[in-house]
Amino acid sequence: MRNLEVVISPALLPFYNVKGKIVVIIDILRATSSMCVAFKTGVEKILTLSSAEECKLFKEFNFVIAAEKDAVKVPGFDLGNSPFEFENPLLEGKSIALATTNGTKAIKYAEENGALNIVIGSFLNIDTLCDWLNNEQEDVLLLCAGWKNKFNLEDTLFAGAVVNKIGTNFKIDCDSALSSELLYKQNENQLELLIRQSSHAKRFSLIHLNTDDVKYCIQMNTAPVLPILKDKYFLNNI
Amino acid sequence: MRNLEVVISPALLPFYNVKGKIVVIIDILRATSSMCVAFKTGVEKILTLSSAEECKLFKEFNFVIAAEKDAVKVPGFDLGNSPFEFENPLLEGKSIALATTNGTKAIKYAEENGALNIVIGSFLNIDTLCDWLNNEQEDVLLLCAGWKNKFNLEDTLFAGAVVNKIGTNFKIDCDSALSSELLYKQNENQLELLIRQSSHAKRFSLIHLNTDDVKYCIQMNTAPVLPILKDKYFLNNI
Repeated sequence: MRNLEVVISPALLPFYNVKGKIVVIIDILRATSSMCVAFKTGVEKILTLSSAEECKLFKEFNFVIAAEKDAVKVPGFDLGNSPFEFENPLLEGKSIALATTNGTKAIKYAEENGALNIVIGSFLNIDTLCDWLNNEQEDVLLLCAGWKNKFNLEDTLFAGAVVNKIGTNFKIDCDSALSSELLYKQNENQLELLIRQSSHAKRFSLIHLNTDDVKYCIQMNTAPVLPILKDKYFLNNI
Repeated sequence: MRNLEVVISPALLPFYNVKGKIVVIIDILRATSSMCVAFKTGVEKILTLSSAEECKLFKEFNFVIAAEKDAVKVPGFDLGNSPFEFENPLLEGKSIALATTNGTKAIKYAEENGALNIVIGSFLNIDTLCDWLNNEQEDVLLLCAGWKNKFNLEDTLFAGAVVNKIGTNFKIDCDSALSSELLYKQNENQLELLIRQSSHAKRFSLIHLNTDDVKYCIQMNTAPVLPILKDKYFLNNI
């Protein structure tokens, strides 16, 4: 039977066997949610980068450049990291270079540790993701991007939602999978309330007074896409 | 107001500010539970070490030497790491040199990162610990020893129990504190059942057929002691 594990911080990935596995990157607020929205909008490909400086280099090659730092858009960039910005129809067919604080780092860690496939998860594409995972053959690691390598609530809740949906098809011998599923089941009817209490969401609500990123990012299945890493670029596999 | 945070793996401690704080070491199965039992029995002091090899060196200085590796007593040692072994009245007044897989490493991490005070927590001394924490002045980090740097269920549940008891006296701006308290509140009446499902407990039940370490280690307040690190040795502060 295939294994399903949950890694609650990129800093813990070195303690797991990643080689040959499928790694699902989870950064609910907001990188992986925004990537799903971008592909729903019709973006062609996304290049993820670990710093705004690297990201800026791609402007001259006709990439739309997107970067946030500590949850705020970096000055001089086309886009920040709010999912609302990725709904713009002008993005159809474009290539995006995206730098984020936590999500991009998790992707790099997974690559460096020999993952076979790296895909993107969010509440917005949860069923598409789960169907795809069910149909593959390899073991699965759900990797929470967290906040500056710390545990965060919203990524763990999403991991728990995935375990809850497909866990019976896998062997679960992982305390973080068990705990995240318990946490999800306890709170599935009050996700918004709970995430609003999280340290990350509190940080947002102070910064972004005009949008409602939390509410946006906990919608289920509004972006039925499957972003998958193919030779340096994320493409939509669906 | 003082801060209270939960660190779910020693490998995440570098991402927290430890300097000048109180660090509570948590290794429910079994190091910190056994240390509490030892002081209840009347042991004078405990030296914690990160390897069985180092530990063995102290035999000639009249220490009782205790070491486990992957949950089994190391051959040639006086004691392993089961709390039952530390109830022996012959240990009264003795000094113990203790090596464990996870607990000792967490203690070393906390020392190296500049903790002001390092104390030992388990269900067996939870109220004594909480009273002491309430009466101190510094910020508190609850450090779960985990299993080989991974998240584990029983340590996180204990951290949640402490947050549940004293959290209202602290400022909580930490998703792992919030989550561990939710997990504890959801399961406080079925701790044993849940911990028996954990990967660590499953490993035990295969190895230790004759004792019941899980049941022992979730007893509340059977060892009202406060092990605290003073100049390389843990002593009982109560």
